[in-house]
Amino acid sequence: MHCVRVWTRSLCRVEYLGPWRRSLSHTAAGKLDLSGVYPPIATPFTAKEDVDYQKLEENLLKYAKIPFKGLVVQGSNGEYPYLTEEERVEVVNAVRRSLPLGKLLMAGSGCESTKATLQLTEKMAAVGVDAVLVVNPCFYKGKMDSRALIHHFTEVADSSPVPVVLYSVPANTGLELPMDAVVELCQHPNILGLKDSGGDITRIGLIVHKTEAQDFQVLAGSAGFLMAAYCVGAVGGVCALANVLGQELCELERLCKSGRWEEARVLQQRLIEPNASVTRKLGVPALKQAMEWFGYHGGACRSPLQPLTEAETLQLRRDFSTNGWL
Amino acid sequence: MHCVRVWTRSLCRVEYLGPWRRSLSHTAAGKLDLSGVYPPIATPFTAKEDVDYQKLEENLLKYAKIPFKGLVVQGSNGEYPYLTEEERVEVVNAVRRSLPLGKLLMAGSGCESTKATLQLTEKMAAVGVDAVLVVNPCFYKGKMDSRALIHHFTEVADSSPVPVVLYSVPANTGLELPMDAVVELCQHPNILGLKDSGGDITRIGLIVHKTEAQDFQVLAGSAGFLMAAYCVGAVGGVCALANVLGQELCELERLCKSGRWEEARVLQQRLIEPNASVTRKLGVPALKQAMEWFGYHGGACRSPLQPLTEAETLQLRRDFSTNGWL
Amino acid sequence: MHCVRVWTRSLCRVEYLGPWRRSLSHTAAGKLDLSGVYPPIATPFTAKEDVDYQKLEENLLKYAKIPFKGLVVQGSNGEYPYLTEEERVEVVNAVRRSLPLGKLLMAGSGCESTKATLQLTEKMAAVGVDAVLVVNPCFYKGKMDSRALIHHFTEVADSSPVPVVLYSVPANTGLELPMDAVVELCQHPNILGLKDSGGDITRIGLIVHKTEAQDFQVLAGSAGFLMAAYCVGAVGGVCALANVLGQELCELERLCKSGRWEEARVLQQRLIEPNASVTRKLGVPALKQAMEWFGYHGGACRSPLQPLTEAETLQLRRDFSTNGWL
Amino acid sequence: MHCVRVWTRSLCRVEYLGPWRRSLSHTAAGKLDLSGVYPPIATPFTAKEDVDYQKLEENLLKYAKIPFKGLVVQGSNGEYPYLTEEERVEVVNAVRRSLPLGKLLMAGSGCESTKATLQLTEKMAAVGVDAVLVVNPCFYKGKMDSRALIHHFTEVADSSPVPVVLYSVPANTGLELPMDAVVELCQHPNILGLKDSGGDITRIGLIVHKTEAQDFQVLAGSAGFLMAAYCVGAVGGVCALANVLGQELCELERLCKSGRWEEARVLQQRLIEPNASVTRKLGVPALKQAMEWFGYHGGACRSPLQPLTEAETLQLRRDFSTNGWL
Repeated sequence: MHCVRVWTRSLCRVEYLGPWRRSLSHTAAGKLDLSGVYPPIATPFTAKEDVDYQKLEENLLKYAKIPFKGLVVQGSNGEYPYLTEEERVEVVNAVRRSLPLGKLLMAGSGCESTKATLQLTEKMAAVGVDAVLVVNPCFYKGKMDSRALIHHFTEVADSSPVPVVLYSVPANTGLELPMDAVVELCQHPNILGLKDSGGDITRIGLIVHKTEAQDFQVLAGSAGFLMAAYCVGAVGGVCALANVLGQELCELERLCKSGRWEEARVLQQRLIEPNASVTRKLGVPALKQAMEWFGYHGGACRSPLQPLTEAETLQLRRDFSTNGWL
Repeated sequence: MHCVRVWTRSLCRVEYLGPWRRSLSHTAAGKLDLSGVYPPIATPFTAKEDVDYQKLEENLLKYAKIPFKGLVVQGSNGEYPYLTEEERVEVVNAVRRSLPLGKLLMAGSGCESTKATLQLTEKMAAVGVDAVLVVNPCFYKGKMDSRALIHHFTEVADSSPVPVVLYSVPANTGLELPMDAVVELCQHPNILGLKDSGGDITRIGLIVHKTEAQDFQVLAGSAGFLMAAYCVGAVGGVCALANVLGQELCELERLCKSGRWEEARVLQQRLIEPNASVTRKLGVPALKQAMEWFGYHGGACRSPLQPLTEAETLQLRRDFSTNGWL
Repeated sequence: MHCVRVWTRSLCRVEYLGPWRRSLSHTAAGKLDLSGVYPPIATPFTAKEDVDYQKLEENLLKYAKIPFKGLVVQGSNGEYPYLTEEERVEVVNAVRRSLPLGKLLMAGSGCESTKATLQLTEKMAAVGVDAVLVVNPCFYKGKMDSRALIHHFTEVADSSPVPVVLYSVPANTGLELPMDAVVELCQHPNILGLKDSGGDITRIGLIVHKTEAQDFQVLAGSAGFLMAAYCVGAVGGVCALANVLGQELCELERLCKSGRWEEARVLQQRLIEPNASVTRKLGVPALKQAMEWFGYHGGACRSPLQPLTEAETLQLRRDFSTNGWL
Repeated sequence: MHCVRVWTRSLCRVEYLGPWRRSLSHTAAGKLDLSGVYPPIATPFTAKEDVDYQKLEENLLKYAKIPFKGLVVQGSNGEYPYLTEEERVEVVNAVRRSLPLGKLLMAGSGCESTKATLQLTEKMAAVGVDAVLVVNPCFYKGKMDSRALIHHFTEVADSSPVPVVLYSVPANTGLELPMDAVVELCQHPNILGLKDSGGDITRIGLIVHKTEAQDFQVLAGSAGFLMAAYCVGAVGGVCALANVLGQELCELERLCKSGRWEEARVLQQRLIEPNASVTRKLGVPALKQAMEWFGYHGGACRSPLQPLTEAETLQLRRDFSTNGWL
């Protein structure tokens, strides 16, 4: 057990015991500082579709040289819905062991039921994650209204030994975490922020606005709108493309944070098409293919995700090359 | 192990060994006959959200008196995404033990990954289901095209010891199983049919038309369009409302099959609002509430599904009472 | 002026003066009987995109030999949004002059504003239509709620010299006429029924159910679900495909009305793909191309509608030929 | 006739004759400079729903004191779909007469058919607009692909005496002008830019990127994402909220253009809720109500747009007051 939880009234404070954790920065309000860029790392598989820990480690060694704030394990790009619960925890554990000092580790622990989410969150905390990223349940879409989601996330945050980051990814879940639920949940002392992959910049600006009293931290969930999100008040991004062009995304962050907007814009614009290609357009198989081109281990996806067709591979390459990356 | 699989070339034949199975009827082409009405049974929970096997059994005793073709366990209304894999198998096992002679048992075994679906299908077969109902994976919506889905279902059907029924439920998955995938998959000897909960009657008619050479059996996935589905060639229905008004839905089936369309229409029309209320409008919590009113055990749902509000309960009651059911 | 309106209290009665009108049948409640099949006729254009009245008349002569209940002018397939107000009235006038005794003439008079709809309705009545088909306004989608739509249709029905048929066509308007608005409006004495092109058979069944006390007549808005619509209580259909396979759709009507459902199903199924091709899949240009193949004048559409590509033409032909129509 | 068109090869140059036009600025490439903020002005009506030219003029006098780049007449907020063609031209003419020297006048001239759009564009040019804003046709959604839309806009731009600005407003049309159509059309010498009201900031950034060689000018179509749009390269905005808080939006523009992003962010955030209230949430009736509160003439809308309910008025007021505007 890496941490103890101390509840003082409605306030949840998490005291980290491990020495490597002390190096993580905190916000003015004393919360874990999430600001920065994270790759939501891909999960390499062997030809037999088993997790390839060797290749995973080799990727991590390369990522260690990039000024990421930390890593996200089992965001959508990690194919977490295709991993067993045991695999989910074991992969996070493996990443934990390789993680350099001072890097933040966030892991996805969202499941459909509240009960399963509580249990997986406990397990993730036990292997040493700094925060959990909890996607909203979505199967019973029609009933996942604010009432249900506030109840769900409150239960999870109440019992989680580590801070919780909300996660809204409508392209996969078919459901956007409602604004009023976010505004309500931002008041929970154990909920730190939101990863928003929907990309509605008006909504992101409004969330920043309506949660600013709570020191709530918003992360852009995709590289396509990272600059615009910084512009309206986000503090960082969890971007699939960071698996491929991590250095460049950190550079974009640096330009935005230092107010060099003109240079930022030029860089941002060159990243939109490659990003769209490895996410919305061609998905995880494209992300993994592009990783191969840029010196990482991507490899195949678990079925039912299929390898790219030849035409798709050409399109992917074109989206990188016409923007000067290949 | 209740069955052996004999592969002769591309043909899959399943020989059932248990004596209770011999009583199930078969189509002219020798396939398991799916025709008829099924309740996709709800899963009762205790106050602590554990599966309440006692109450489940009591419900089954009552369902045994209704002329259902069989039972579907772990369709969407069974809250299967909220059950662990062990619970999923154990609930099916419990139902198997209570099932009267001659009733068909179909169980949901769909998971996001092909691998997990294969494994759960094996386990469901091992506890004696007559067929598995396999929902399409849906998390990576953008990549779940016909190519991926045909690959997925073919692998599942190739290895499944029992016949497979496809399951399309766009209200939950955000994805309709594409027509061309259905038309391709209907040729697989171990794929029997489709449960279509989307309710697009033009599509249902066309699926019947384009698969008729393969003796493919289409089941309506909701009571709201059961009569219309019969009209265009479906052979039965898996209807949430059958948990509540099972006798009435069997009566509707009888009227449709005997060509008494005028009487069928009158009955069908009175069922639309109650059905909408326990599905699209108010969901599983409403289904379980209505079950209580009609003498079954419904009880609470697992979180994050919430109990009905007072206003919702009134609306539910009104949808039954204005149609003469309460 | 072909008609006079007599208001007795809240009841609107329309007395037709022209002798040809006396032959139109009425329902038990004394309303104009809409039951039957109608082609929503296409508008032929010359090479310069002017209305080709000569070709229109030749089409009408051929339609006169088919047992249609009547004709719909300026439904969606008539390219009415591409006609000026003058053209809209003049085309209807031309059809009126060619219409055989006993055929019902329904014309689209819906505009975005209530005022414009009132005015065009007056003009349509003045050239002798038997009823107007009024599509819901849709530009300000977010504000076209039941309150606005009930207000709009009530004003139109209050002032219209001829009966009004509501028209819901979500594929074009992006908006389905809400159920509660239909249920409210069905009580207006000058609103006869609804043409529903959305194809949600559960909704159609429920509308029939909830309006039956008002002698409200529902027409299927597409051939793809004509049989299912009859099955749940519709009285007829306004079907683009009737421009091409009019005799066959009248035969389908006859089979449905005489309870020969098995034969009806076989015919219905062969019509789904051709119908989808000339509507949802390839649109008005395909409808006009198919008309040419079947001996009618179709010709080109007004811009921005484009002629079919070669690949589209092949697909269209295949959708007819694989179903035995070409 | 206020202008002559000179075609030199593929280049379209428009020479303005009126002295008031000479004061309009041009881009480096010699095109009309669109940069800046515009209110898409509302159309005041009398109690009888006639255009109230008196009140319109009084609004214009007040707008003249705000550093707008110009005015947009008959954008979506002008209720143009509810005006006759004559009214559309006459309203523009009236605005033309009141417009101060140096202000740019842009008028909506989009219709469903290419022919009608050509004609209205000619009329708008004849009364002296500096550019036309042309929304994409949308009724036959399924057929309005890039091929059709490129054809449509090319014909319009070829024949228009004044430059053309594309207009994409999916909330009303149900259709987003496709990226590839925009990239193709940006090469037309008489197409200046795009008003994008969809608000997808990734798309806006990519459009700026892929059209930069053509000096193509992108305008944000709503105040909610104005700052983010500037950030990714837009040159201005056409914002409903500018009818109410015009000075503030010009201030936001000034902050963005002078790189004072921190101040800009604070102001932007306070504008999101009022903007959402007068557009997406409550629409034109709310815009007109808010105009009244801020000293302009708003008044009623044409039917079928309905006045706000009391609850809606309260919500509107709250969206302004909680952000410190009332």
